[in-house]
Amino acid sequence: MEKETIRIENFSDAVFAIAITLLVLDLHAPDIQTVKNGAELLAYLKNEWTAYLAFTLSFFSIFIMWVNHHKIFKQIYSRNTAIMFSNGLILFLVTAVSYPTALLSRFFEGEASSISVAIYTGIFVLINISYNLLWFIASNNKKLLRPGITNSAIKKIRNNYLYGFPTYLIAFGISFHYPAAALAISMLLLIYWAVSSGKINMVEE
Amino acid sequence: MEKETIRIENFSDAVFAIAITLLVLDLHAPDIQTVKNGAELLAYLKNEWTAYLAFTLSFFSIFIMWVNHHKIFKQIYSRNTAIMFSNGLILFLVTAVSYPTALLSRFFEGEASSISVAIYTGIFVLINISYNLLWFIASNNKKLLRPGITNSAIKKIRNNYLYGFPTYLIAFGISFHYPAAALAISMLLLIYWAVSSGKINMVEE
Amino acid sequence: MEKETIRIENFSDAVFAIAITLLVLDLHAPDIQTVKNGAELLAYLKNEWTAYLAFTLSFFSIFIMWVNHHKIFKQIYSRNTAIMFSNGLILFLVTAVSYPTALLSRFFEGEASSISVAIYTGIFVLINISYNLLWFIASNNKKLLRPGITNSAIKKIRNNYLYGFPTYLIAFGISFHYPAAALAISMLLLIYWAVSSGKINMVEE
Amino acid sequence: MEKETIRIENFSDAVFAIAITLLVLDLHAPDIQTVKNGAELLAYLKNEWTAYLAFTLSFFSIFIMWVNHHKIFKQIYSRNTAIMFSNGLILFLVTAVSYPTALLSRFFEGEASSISVAIYTGIFVLINISYNLLWFIASNNKKLLRPGITNSAIKKIRNNYLYGFPTYLIAFGISFHYPAAALAISMLLLIYWAVSSGKINMVEE
Repeated sequence: MEKETIRIENFSDAVFAIAITLLVLDLHAPDIQTVKNGAELLAYLKNEWTAYLAFTLSFFSIFIMWVNHHKIFKQIYSRNTAIMFSNGLILFLVTAVSYPTALLSRFFEGEASSISVAIYTGIFVLINISYNLLWFIASNNKKLLRPGITNSAIKKIRNNYLYGFPTYLIAFGISFHYPAAALAISMLLLIYWAVSSGKINMVEE
Repeated sequence: MEKETIRIENFSDAVFAIAITLLVLDLHAPDIQTVKNGAELLAYLKNEWTAYLAFTLSFFSIFIMWVNHHKIFKQIYSRNTAIMFSNGLILFLVTAVSYPTALLSRFFEGEASSISVAIYTGIFVLINISYNLLWFIASNNKKLLRPGITNSAIKKIRNNYLYGFPTYLIAFGISFHYPAAALAISMLLLIYWAVSSGKINMVEE
Repeated sequence: MEKETIRIENFSDAVFAIAITLLVLDLHAPDIQTVKNGAELLAYLKNEWTAYLAFTLSFFSIFIMWVNHHKIFKQIYSRNTAIMFSNGLILFLVTAVSYPTALLSRFFEGEASSISVAIYTGIFVLINISYNLLWFIASNNKKLLRPGITNSAIKKIRNNYLYGFPTYLIAFGISFHYPAAALAISMLLLIYWAVSSGKINMVEE
Repeated sequence: MEKETIRIENFSDAVFAIAITLLVLDLHAPDIQTVKNGAELLAYLKNEWTAYLAFTLSFFSIFIMWVNHHKIFKQIYSRNTAIMFSNGLILFLVTAVSYPTALLSRFFEGEASSISVAIYTGIFVLINISYNLLWFIASNNKKLLRPGITNSAIKKIRNNYLYGFPTYLIAFGISFHYPAAALAISMLLLIYWAVSSGKINMVEE
């Protein structure tokens, strides 16, 4: 049985690659009028730490999403309209990540901190839901999957994304009162995904 | 017979992927000076709903155009200069979509609403024409097509795009007086394309 | 003999695709403050005709350069450092095209017209030189070329690019006094390239 | 043994291609209000020479990094989490290059010159470290490498990147007092990499 999903994967890979690279456009160099000498430039750059934090966090988030996207599609061999559009939803949210990133970068310090973190963690809740949806649609119809995939492998992948959901929701929930803690949880989740992506790997072989 | 059009498809896929991802650059984060606290940030974001509407509409429009582009090129096996440049015209219009999107995002609310919607629906009329042109050129010379394609399959694809034309034209026509209704029709057409792309799919097998 | 240049071509294709799509970023939507109603929006857009001209001209110029790039690389089977870097030079100039495009779009009307057109036509002179350089390097060492390529095919391709050089130079030269005529020549050259790319095609088969 | 790393390479190639093309976005066309005629346009453009220098330097730096990236991955056949994330680190730094480029372009002339050059050369120190890290991880476990690779080939590649490290560090170190000399060293290193990439090539065959 031939894999039908190769071009969806290639198109998705391209969107991930562009989305991850466009993030840098929100790192702004200062105007020549504002910054007169080296000390002022260093001061300006130090003040931009939230932009670097947001850039770094979003870069590695999209990177790990891409790793996971590929891992899911390694198990999907056929496509239907539902697969196409749940994947379209993932791509939509992934390209949108740069917007909450820009908000976080500008408002993490200051009074709008909790709202900007809530929006930032909120989009990861939505992305988690869209991954769960894709895998739900794919695994619901075994004809769409890689021939010979075991039920335990299907369940393992499902659980991997389902378990993410409450954690993202918690991060989102506490953003309103403890934005820094919510962001820290997001970072820990990043590391968890990175490690757990290794685990799914073992499922494949 | 070998398929000669693979690199045109790859190049086109890349242009679609970049065009769809660049749309996010028109979502603007507010200045730190304008927005002082969470309530003001939320108020700013709520006020930006036309930008989100335009972004979402254009994202899924380009996504469905890409799906349809691929479906047409699955049937085209050879290329000539006319194919190259009618495809170039499609890519030209697809990359241009972000400009009417930016206009819609800024002027859908307010007195320039009808003009911005007319321009927005107008580009989809042009894109529909360019798809019709590509298929007209390709299907006019059966040597360019997939060997073994049936006449009924050729007609089915042609009708699929031809039927789109009057509908887009109606959307364009009523933009001047009922911009909101014209945009609603565009959204319905989006859903129609999504569903009808499933129908073309059946033609292929 | 295996073709060694596939990944250079893929990388180049990606750069062409991105460069062609980024051009749209120089179409600027007006501020909401400047434009109050439909009539003002139309007046603003009419006034932007130089931007549309520059966008259209550059889009199809890069498109035809891509077609020609591919045609040259269809004949190149091996690579060496000189091929790598003359190709790098082409990519460098292609990505830079958006800068003279922005200048043309802003200054074609007005007193800086001739300088902006000279810079615009000037980059096409440089690009023509870089294509000639690439083909000179490749055809100088027949081991780099497709096995079985005929001398007349090599010459045909060389002449195709060599003949472009004086014409581009003329367009560049007259930009200083007749900018509109120089731009018109560039457009005619575009059509010539489009047609002549068909001729090279015949060489291949 | 099948090569497992193809999609990492494709994704990386796309990120390199986008990062290299986005550099042009930091070449800014002047406002129509500022520049009134051809002489003023030429004066403006002459004044922008630091932007062209930074653009050119960064373009060819990323180009050579891409050549080297490919050369390393030609020797890597399997992947593990460490490979994935050390490659992710390289991509992170490569996409970030446009930021120090923008700083260099604005501040190379003037009092913040040494700081802007130090940041610019600093990112190349980091990129050199990330390449060393990737090759350290890959070569530490011969199962990850191309079957049949010789120890001398492994050592040759390692030395190629290791020798770069002190040179980049020197460029970084002297940036604080002799920014122009530090930039000149970076340019010489560029040429060294271009030539040495030919040498690694020979290792492959």
